[in-house]
Amino acid sequence: MSKIPYKIYLEENEIPTQWYNVRADMKNKPAPLLNPGTLQPMTAEELEGVFCADLVAQELDNDTPYIDIPQEILDFYKMYRPSPLVRAYCLEKKLGTSAKIYYKFEGNNTSGSHKLNSAIAQAYYAKKQGLKGVTTETGAGQWGTALSMACAYFDLDCKVYMVKVSYEQKPFRREVMRTYGASVTPSPSMETEVGKKILAEHPGTTGSLGCAISEAVEKAVSTEGYRYVLGSVLNQVLLHQSIIGLETKTALDKIGEKPDIIIGCAGGGSNLGGLVSPFMGEKLRGESDYRIIAIEPSSCPSFTRGKFAYDFCDTGMVCPLAKMYTLGSGFIPAPNHAGGLRYHGMSSILSQLYHDGLMEARSYKQTEVFEAAELFARSEGILPAPESSHAIKGAIDEALKCKESGEEKTIVFGLTGTGYFDMVAYEKFHDGEMTDYVPTDEEIRAYLEKLPKTE
Amino acid sequence: MSKIPYKIYLEENEIPTQWYNVRADMKNKPAPLLNPGTLQPMTAEELEGVFCADLVAQELDNDTPYIDIPQEILDFYKMYRPSPLVRAYCLEKKLGTSAKIYYKFEGNNTSGSHKLNSAIAQAYYAKKQGLKGVTTETGAGQWGTALSMACAYFDLDCKVYMVKVSYEQKPFRREVMRTYGASVTPSPSMETEVGKKILAEHPGTTGSLGCAISEAVEKAVSTEGYRYVLGSVLNQVLLHQSIIGLETKTALDKIGEKPDIIIGCAGGGSNLGGLVSPFMGEKLRGESDYRIIAIEPSSCPSFTRGKFAYDFCDTGMVCPLAKMYTLGSGFIPAPNHAGGLRYHGMSSILSQLYHDGLMEARSYKQTEVFEAAELFARSEGILPAPESSHAIKGAIDEALKCKESGEEKTIVFGLTGTGYFDMVAYEKFHDGEMTDYVPTDEEIRAYLEKLPKTE
Repeated sequence: MSKIPYKIYLEENEIPTQWYNVRADMKNKPAPLLNPGTLQPMTAEELEGVFCADLVAQELDNDTPYIDIPQEILDFYKMYRPSPLVRAYCLEKKLGTSAKIYYKFEGNNTSGSHKLNSAIAQAYYAKKQGLKGVTTETGAGQWGTALSMACAYFDLDCKVYMVKVSYEQKPFRREVMRTYGASVTPSPSMETEVGKKILAEHPGTTGSLGCAISEAVEKAVSTEGYRYVLGSVLNQVLLHQSIIGLETKTALDKIGEKPDIIIGCAGGGSNLGGLVSPFMGEKLRGESDYRIIAIEPSSCPSFTRGKFAYDFCDTGMVCPLAKMYTLGSGFIPAPNHAGGLRYHGMSSILSQLYHDGLMEARSYKQTEVFEAAELFARSEGILPAPESSHAIKGAIDEALKCKESGEEKTIVFGLTGTGYFDMVAYEKFHDGEMTDYVPTDEEIRAYLEKLPKTE
Repeated sequence: MSKIPYKIYLEENEIPTQWYNVRADMKNKPAPLLNPGTLQPMTAEELEGVFCADLVAQELDNDTPYIDIPQEILDFYKMYRPSPLVRAYCLEKKLGTSAKIYYKFEGNNTSGSHKLNSAIAQAYYAKKQGLKGVTTETGAGQWGTALSMACAYFDLDCKVYMVKVSYEQKPFRREVMRTYGASVTPSPSMETEVGKKILAEHPGTTGSLGCAISEAVEKAVSTEGYRYVLGSVLNQVLLHQSIIGLETKTALDKIGEKPDIIIGCAGGGSNLGGLVSPFMGEKLRGESDYRIIAIEPSSCPSFTRGKFAYDFCDTGMVCPLAKMYTLGSGFIPAPNHAGGLRYHGMSSILSQLYHDGLMEARSYKQTEVFEAAELFARSEGILPAPESSHAIKGAIDEALKCKESGEEKTIVFGLTGTGYFDMVAYEKFHDGEMTDYVPTDEEIRAYLEKLPKTE
């Protein structure tokens, strides 16, 4: 048998033409979103005040296993997809492991991450509905960049609320978004009522995804011809991101590989959910078994230390409630934490799957994650995003276990993006100024006690 | 016939296993390097005080058409090559042109450019020779990053002198290099005699590639176990970069395309020389004809306003003299000019070819280049480096000519890299603060009058 190449590229005509909806194979469906006023399940009509109609349909569809990708979106996908599945020969050699390591690399596009997969879909449906523009929030800046690119392509206005700490740590991200014609505001801001309220209560806050979501939603529902779009957490986003997993599965099938362990970083869950979806589908249908591991930061440990309960998706409590693993919507991670994965909650789909014992979760501290990032950069030549580096750390640990046991496991992980805009964090790491904040049990308990009473 | 895909990827086993040396097919060989003291052609022995022995052999070899790429280098190439040849369908549509536009994209690696192709070769030969480390200069930072990556891979020390204006405009580049273990010094510095001298004569200078080269060479020749490596200009670099053109040719052959026009940006000439080499070879052998166009910045117009003469390769006049199109080794481009392409001279190979009428040259102003960059980013989704954007501007202009004439020409250009570290320049462009410096005839004449007398 000939050697497996370093990079496994699919042909253009092997790009999936349908997204896979893992909910169709879930016995226990994710719980519905609740109206924050009535605490009743949100109807399509209610959701359509905030989201595009077609996206609402996708959000609520727990039954259709495959959904056609519109041709306009496929055409855009062809600009940067299929993304490569890479055999990490150099990392394997560096570790001296008997494991085989693969990663699906989603960073080879200007947004720098997998976020573009859903951004282009959401922009397309907004355009199709005849909207003027969309609002959103961004943490690390990857989602905002992705949405800016997608909006430029479909000639839509794009208004981005960027978590203040990221806005300051990543000034150049703003310029990339401006290159694509977006307007970018640091959040919390004085532009919205909820922003004013948060600033009054927490002057000097460095913001959080939860705050920025509140502002973007308020702006969307109060502006004619606008809707709100979200880069993670939602069912529709996991649906769009299933393209990652579908391509990965096709590529692995082509080289005759079957993974033992699949690893992804988890903030809101979009990358992990997308990567694992077809594998999880097999697992749900009883066709195969896989170990699936979510990696999250110790500073924001929704899965590993949060509670499975209904909670607000945003800090301002204007959004629907979702049932998910949450640290409480008031939880704001330490500002020194690099980049994304700062969200207090988690995708309802992944939360349900985790609750049902279909996947594992693990948390790592910031410094050990950057150590893994540097090792990876030096061996595989790609400078990884801090978010993605959580998955790298997870994969390295599993590979080192194989080294000890001599097992030849096949490990697949998601390398969601590049770290070109994270050099402030890398600088802190190089200068020994990076700290490892981990919330205390008391802190977490205090937030969890404030969870809304829904039952 | 099925539609040509957006991205044409070669298989791993189609990566060229030999570099192509265009000098073998040149009737008029590039003039030899001269010893700055004796003004006699540099011998291999003399050059080996500065460069690795194997690289000196490549530098002086005007006859061997194909040179084997060592397996260790091929293994590294497989980490990020083959690079895609992209059909710019979206740009074509945006322009409404009848032309077919392709670009060879070299930015999908962490160095952000084609520079890695030669960096890994030079690091390999340094390691093979048993050296401890290498020194170099970097302008935009791409070469320094590439060399840092290559040195990390082969466990070599890497000492980079970075042009001060880039060091200040691109603080994060330094951190990328540090991630790969390199040490980075802004140039001119007080670390070298030549740096001290330049600072004494021009206090407050923002530096130039020419200055930084002088410092890096001095450091290399005065440090045990070190040699100097250079990212452009030299014959050996064009040899390594021929992989760009060879892959491009193979990909075009596969889809049955023959370019009419080939366009590249030109600073020192490494990308252009690499991209065009196999096509130029056909042209030299009388097998095909192609229009080959070099694009340079109006602020540093070596081809279009310089003189074909022997000149120093560096500002400090410690390096050998090369016969090339030059603006004079004292010429330092305006500090407001973004990124690379700031070199006063040009590859001797390309200079000879241009002198012999085998290629054209054209210059563009900074603002119009950034306009092209933004148009490209919004249509093709890739944020281009300022350097690469010169080639984009050239390709757009040729495509618009086709639109007028209705011709269906095939245009291929080199997209050398990404602009993630050039956001200060993009910010100036967005804020209307970008200026278009063009040297006056008097300025250029003043520098050219100081060219060394060699004949």
